Amino acid sequence: MNKGENGEIDPDFVARLAHYLGFDEGRVQHLFEKNYFARNWGKHDYLFRFDKEISHIERGTVLYEKGDSFEVIMGFPKIRRAMVLDPTIKKYFSGLEKVAVEEKMNGYNVRVAKVKGEILAITRSGYICPYTTERAKEKLDLRFFDDFPELVLYGEMLGPDNPYVPKEIYGIESVEFYIFDIREKNSGNPLSISRKRKILEEYSFLQVECFGEFPLQTAAEEIAKVVRKLGEKEHEGVVIKDPEMILAPLKYTSSQSNCSDLRHAFRFYNEAGRDYMLSRIVREGFQTVEWNENEAEFKKRYMQLGESILNPLRESIRSVKDGKRLYEEARIRVKELKTATEFGNYLKRLGIDAIFEEPQPIGNEYLIIIKKVNKSTNDKTQAILEGEFW
Amino acid sequence: MNKGENGEIDPDFVARLAHYLGFDEGRVQHLFEKNYFARNWGKHDYLFRFDKEISHIERGTVLYEKGDSFEVIMGFPKIRRAMVLDPTIKKYFSGLEKVAVEEKMNGYNVRVAKVKGEILAITRSGYICPYTTERAKEKLDLRFFDDFPELVLYGEMLGPDNPYVPKEIYGIESVEFYIFDIREKNSGNPLSISRKRKILEEYSFLQVECFGEFPLQTAAEEIAKVVRKLGEKEHEGVVIKDPEMILAPLKYTSSQSNCSDLRHAFRFYNEAGRDYMLSRIVREGFQTVEWNENEAEFKKRYMQLGESILNPLRESIRSVKDGKRLYEEARIRVKELKTATEFGNYLKRLGIDAIFEEPQPIGNEYLIIIKKVNKSTNDKTQAILEGEFW
Repeated sequence: MNKGENGEIDPDFVARLAHYLGFDEGRVQHLFEKNYFARNWGKHDYLFRFDKEISHIERGTVLYEKGDSFEVIMGFPKIRRAMVLDPTIKKYFSGLEKVAVEEKMNGYNVRVAKVKGEILAITRSGYICPYTTERAKEKLDLRFFDDFPELVLYGEMLGPDNPYVPKEIYGIESVEFYIFDIREKNSGNPLSISRKRKILEEYSFLQVECFGEFPLQTAAEEIAKVVRKLGEKEHEGVVIKDPEMILAPLKYTSSQSNCSDLRHAFRFYNEAGRDYMLSRIVREGFQTVEWNENEAEFKKRYMQLGESILNPLRESIRSVKDGKRLYEEARIRVKELKTATEFGNYLKRLGIDAIFEEPQPIGNEYLIIIKKVNKSTNDKTQAILEGEFW
Repeated sequence: MNKGENGEIDPDFVARLAHYLGFDEGRVQHLFEKNYFARNWGKHDYLFRFDKEISHIERGTVLYEKGDSFEVIMGFPKIRRAMVLDPTIKKYFSGLEKVAVEEKMNGYNVRVAKVKGEILAITRSGYICPYTTERAKEKLDLRFFDDFPELVLYGEMLGPDNPYVPKEIYGIESVEFYIFDIREKNSGNPLSISRKRKILEEYSFLQVECFGEFPLQTAAEEIAKVVRKLGEKEHEGVVIKDPEMILAPLKYTSSQSNCSDLRHAFRFYNEAGRDYMLSRIVREGFQTVEWNENEAEFKKRYMQLGESILNPLRESIRSVKDGKRLYEEARIRVKELKTATEFGNYLKRLGIDAIFEEPQPIGNEYLIIIKKVNKSTNDKTQAILEGEFW
């Protein structure tokens, strides 16, 4: 995919871009040739995305011409993970008096911004998802983008009609956008938490829950309580922030979130990354030690872990044995069928093998079931069951 | 390690070797330069080993001059694993009426042979282990090598004084050698099972247990019974063989063996290979489906799995938290202290960081405790506990 999508690049454009980025022209040319800097397709072909992290410009950063210069929407900054809450928080945020703790929700990362007069939903990788864009326009108060054309919403698309990470746990009927950051175009600078919350309230945007600000000394203990409670509801975890948003945030997740990741990974055991699996397992080890769990709690944890690994594995093998193909089921709910068609083309373009079922009318919208085929795990399992080797 | 150990290579030697192997000289020169074909050191510097699999010559194969030609001791052939017993056995051994089933014991692979008048214990990788060599001379009836100078014993060193894979499960007091194959020098051809057993009996060699020969149609079922029983004793599994040893064997292991591997891997979670971990887990999935386990059996299996992963992880993290360094404890029992010194130098040469404690006299021998330090997991765990990121 993407190979050659840049086509011929105008040398004048390269020169201006090099000047804007402060790179030399040869380097910009190279980024184009390698598709590290890639042009979007179709009606968004004026948008370029960084397909790799380049000199501190995050992967997924998007760039387009504006007047005789350019404008940039920075990617999602990677949030580092605390493997243990204490002393990581104290050490990392040393110098601060308090940290703010917000919920880390489990959805699909999306930036929403007005670009050349149009509202766009930009994915983590820097693509324009037609479905997410339609939903964002439907769900968000668009006056915000007229009032603050220089600001970008950084949030999560959540709910069962999110075709990427469908979740029922938030009590959302279809999809909603929960915003966690507001950042400026170009600089990528975030607003302070208080300013962000004020603006989000003004426009009645949904926002991730804030569990309060905690003194650095007691934060680890307080956050452990919050994370345990979130875990009971199968929620993911927290993001720990500098209230002024000068230091970058940290994240920390619940055991249930680790296990949920593992359930998914072992269902498609031949696709999922080995490092992905290991990291989730190791987190469980550090959490049980940090939380000083007794044997009963420990037993509960390792049973949960064992089941999260072996049950999906068994289900997948059984399914293939019973002649069923392994797929991930997802669904979308669209206002216009055109959006579904565009979304289908979009997935194809990304190399995702998906089957769209017949649209079912629901209210004034359409619900469409999507089956994403997991060919690798399917074929490997089939071969093993037929007597082949791993 | 090993870099440059080949030193200057005599061009005449290269020419003769190329002729013997049927390679061109440039290729042999290249193998030397890359150390894919490497000279052993010290008093065994006349021995060369294949450090990589080269044109169907197994890694660990050993070669030395004999007269005006060469002699070869072939490496351990890789044994393929059945992920499911049925239909793999039927398919793989199709054409045979019966398969022989032998125990796969969990020890340290070693070939014992007479080379230039000297008994040598050659490791899987093709090194001469001074400790294993001393033990082999002590434990084996050496007349065999005079009677059959062209044969090589392929076996396992087992027991608690095996410093590589110490195991108490076989009821061995110190170490013993259990032989599973006899193969010819040069060709590497194995003797048939009946001929092997007869010879091994003649010299009172210990040999891996044979569970009998099973018709191809019922073998999967019979082997499942054998493997379940082996598992109950924490034994590893079986090797399924063509009685004539024309087709290469297959292996299949117990759940307990998978879990035992996982316990070791997760104790040293930062050293162990991700693929190693995943493969043991996936085997559990196929076994539970093939054996059609009910929910109680399945629960037992996933609890076992969860505990085998999380318990050693917790132990390691706790140990580091308590200020202890992570190490693997092993021990050796030597007749002469010189062997221990040589073994220490040998481990150092292989890049293994090991501390030898004071020898304790035991009978007419010495017992020596060895601590192998696991620096990577140790340092990573320490760093995380001090608030660093993964």
